Amino acid sequence: MSKGRLIVFSAPSGCGKGTMLAEILKDDSFYLSVSATTRAPREGEVDGENYHFLTKEKFEELIANDGVLEYAKYCDNYYGTPLKPVEDYLNAGKNVILEIEVQGAMKVKERMPDALMIFVLPPSVGELRRRLEKRGTESLEVIEKRVSAASDEIKCAEKYDYVIVNDALEDAVNDFKAVIKAEKQKTKYAGELIDEVIKNA
Amino acid sequence: MSKGRLIVFSAPSGCGKGTMLAEILKDDSFYLSVSATTRAPREGEVDGENYHFLTKEKFEELIANDGVLEYAKYCDNYYGTPLKPVEDYLNAGKNVILEIEVQGAMKVKERMPDALMIFVLPPSVGELRRRLEKRGTESLEVIEKRVSAASDEIKCAEKYDYVIVNDALEDAVNDFKAVIKAEKQKTKYAGELIDEVIKNA
Repeated sequence: MSKGRLIVFSAPSGCGKGTMLAEILKDDSFYLSVSATTRAPREGEVDGENYHFLTKEKFEELIANDGVLEYAKYCDNYYGTPLKPVEDYLNAGKNVILEIEVQGAMKVKERMPDALMIFVLPPSVGELRRRLEKRGTESLEVIEKRVSAASDEIKCAEKYDYVIVNDALEDAVNDFKAVIKAEKQKTKYAGELIDEVIKNA
Repeated sequence: MSKGRLIVFSAPSGCGKGTMLAEILKDDSFYLSVSATTRAPREGEVDGENYHFLTKEKFEELIANDGVLEYAKYCDNYYGTPLKPVEDYLNAGKNVILEIEVQGAMKVKERMPDALMIFVLPPSVGELRRRLEKRGTESLEVIEKRVSAASDEIKCAEKYDYVIVNDALEDAVNDFKAVIKAEKQKTKYAGELIDEVIKNA
């Protein structure tokens, strides 16, 4: 079995990343990486599903042993991607998706240069604002902050390999699948295949 | 309108390149480049359709003026790809397909580094031999020569960007379309799109 592909998946909030991922994960060749954190579980959160809940000591031990692909500290808590499960799933032939923000993404790219970097765009920043307003869960001030943060993040899209505009969900998921399909056909990853074709004379 | 993409399409004979192209060209965003030659038209051949039939003087003038993307001389006749129509169709937003062999392909890549290089593979060299035998139009000796030439050509597949295995026609055409779709989403080609998303605030 050939190894799976590590996929970094980033998007500003309001781009419909969650619905896209839910659709993508219906195909069980994909596995969504579970982050680790030192913050306490909230009610209903399950260890190993929402997060791997770790003690501060354990997390720092992982950092010291190069056992996290990327991590950050917010409000005194660590958040990051443990390396071991990612490697295990890749070796088992799964495409492992990391749903992380731009800074973490760049760290992953540095450490795993073969990671496939995908950035999801809203059709426009104006449309993103409308979506956030329609959701109605945030104040106008918070929405403006999010829109402004999104604009900054979108400028980083150029550091990724591919962009996908999430205008209609089905199209966006098809675009994602086309990228995965095409990547498999890159000669860079098809050396074994070419050898097989020649060998089976 | 954005410019079209130049696509170099190569395959050993017997890989079903012709049927694949016929299917691909049903989509009129693609245009198949017509080669130029100095050989005399055969019965039924139409100038500008099968080939651009040129005089030796005219062809050599094109070569002198950098007006051919690639060319070769067989049996005292020139064969090549005139640059002007390729540029015109690209500027008109068409994806222009060059159906050429490996050596010509490498010359095009040198001159147009952005050319998208696609190589079509048979499922195996053994299967290629069976297809050629089944066709029944060539002697066993000719078939062996073709199979051996194909093996050599397949070794060059690694110089291309993508490989497509033509086992079932529909799958191969879908693979081709996925490559075209994915390439459009590469951030390298999506700079304008990213600007638009930000601008439309």
